[in-house]
Amino acid sequence: MVDRLALIGVGLIGSSIARRARQDGLAAEIVATARSRETRETVAHLGLADRVTETAAEAVEGADLVILCTPVGAFGAVAREIGPHLAPGAILTDVGSVKQTVIDDVSPFVPEGVHLIPGHPVAGTENSGPEAGFPDLFEDRWCIVTPPEGADAAATDRLVAFWQALGSKTEVMDARHHDLVLAITSHVPHLIAYNIVGTAADLETVTQSEVIKFSAGGFRDFTRIAASDPTMWRDIFLNNKDAVLEMLGRFTEDLTALQRAIRWGDGDTLFNLFTRTRAIRREVIDAGQETPAPDFGRPHGKG
Amino acid sequence: MVDRLALIGVGLIGSSIARRARQDGLAAEIVATARSRETRETVAHLGLADRVTETAAEAVEGADLVILCTPVGAFGAVAREIGPHLAPGAILTDVGSVKQTVIDDVSPFVPEGVHLIPGHPVAGTENSGPEAGFPDLFEDRWCIVTPPEGADAAATDRLVAFWQALGSKTEVMDARHHDLVLAITSHVPHLIAYNIVGTAADLETVTQSEVIKFSAGGFRDFTRIAASDPTMWRDIFLNNKDAVLEMLGRFTEDLTALQRAIRWGDGDTLFNLFTRTRAIRREVIDAGQETPAPDFGRPHGKG
Repeated sequence: MVDRLALIGVGLIGSSIARRARQDGLAAEIVATARSRETRETVAHLGLADRVTETAAEAVEGADLVILCTPVGAFGAVAREIGPHLAPGAILTDVGSVKQTVIDDVSPFVPEGVHLIPGHPVAGTENSGPEAGFPDLFEDRWCIVTPPEGADAAATDRLVAFWQALGSKTEVMDARHHDLVLAITSHVPHLIAYNIVGTAADLETVTQSEVIKFSAGGFRDFTRIAASDPTMWRDIFLNNKDAVLEMLGRFTEDLTALQRAIRWGDGDTLFNLFTRTRAIRREVIDAGQETPAPDFGRPHGKG
Repeated sequence: MVDRLALIGVGLIGSSIARRARQDGLAAEIVATARSRETRETVAHLGLADRVTETAAEAVEGADLVILCTPVGAFGAVAREIGPHLAPGAILTDVGSVKQTVIDDVSPFVPEGVHLIPGHPVAGTENSGPEAGFPDLFEDRWCIVTPPEGADAAATDRLVAFWQALGSKTEVMDARHHDLVLAITSHVPHLIAYNIVGTAADLETVTQSEVIKFSAGGFRDFTRIAASDPTMWRDIFLNNKDAVLEMLGRFTEDLTALQRAIRWGDGDTLFNLFTRTRAIRREVIDAGQETPAPDFGRPHGKG
């Protein structure tokens, strides 16, 4: 499927691509690189790649598929470094959670004859680093591919087929629309999870020990998302500012209406919303994007 | 441990108490009632009680432990009904998620010689109804007991021992402090989960189908909590107004600061918060209140 796959950055996503590609023989050769020596050594030790290079420039030499798997804030600098070394006809893609800034930051460095086709697998866990990956991470999850205007259709098709081979369902979308969709389905949810965990930690009237002990009332769910990689998420918010601020504005407007309903004892407004939202979980489960098991199937008790 | 246990309302919590009590022989007799005929028939069919009565007044006759397991908004009316029928020396408790209004609404109807000792097991799933319960629901979770001033110490001890027999860890706390602690660890988290799911459903720029498909980016986690029982949660917000509004004010204040950091590109503020919150999940896991498995141990892929 791929002759030489180059992975720039090998965290949760990069290492999951490597594991699945190796398991299913999707690439004749996998070359990987990472900025820190420690990560490179872990990648070599785990046998995730055929070769581990010290620089991104070396990694992309002769690769027909190059995937940027670093935090999105690093993409511009990486593109500047690898641009002159990209092979003619290669596909350059990424796994970043924002897509328009990838086009803005990376395309100036992409030589004629190389196909920039950004992508985003909507999958993950709260863990990070090369040890956190696993080959089934993308199974039944969606990967959104956002070819820029005028992109080569055959290159887009090849990338789509690669993600399908990794286990994903795929959707082709405009980059700006992607950023709006992900702002509401991922970025604002992460922001409010980080925020509530921070608020709870900073109270004077309730101790941190009480917050931890009684977290099973709902709070603990938010701590999972709020344990996600800080660098990755800083970069997402800085690079999807407009869409996040727009969706956050909607969220806050709606929350203010709920606050008013609570203050004035308007139980019907609360009840009607709570009934509508219940149906949406059913749809998420029916779409195969969530387990039907109660409480995410988490263990109860010692068993 | 208990001669006759009376359960008023048999949903997720009530039926879990019944199941555990039966499994471990914690009550010589279990009498249950529910407002709807359908629920009463289900309770009888599932064999959750020795007797199912049509009214709460009948259910509490001769019971030494009476547990209110309806939504908290119904407690006042139930107390008015059962008050004259409560046996001398009985313990009257509940499982509501707010505690001060229980004391306010119920105590006027409690006859001399009956011990009102409110309680709250901090445990649950998003499912409701008598079929949703299971005997291990309370295992390793906390139950907060909030005896009013001047409550009988022996009665409090008996109730604490009963919850420990159900599998809970127990903590005795002032009712008002309980309401503040739960506002931040449970009520505001539920409110923002309900809210984000509502916001996402109401957008014009992103379709509901897109929200569902790409929910694995974080949104789906919130749909679980937002699938909780609408009546129960309406009553919680109406009955813990002051504490919820106070904690919501803190949440919004902090969120506004994050919004400003995003608008002005202040990456350090974001990074510092995201690093702090990561540590808190570790504490929740270390306290035995959360699974250490990535992604709550949810299945990935078809396997």
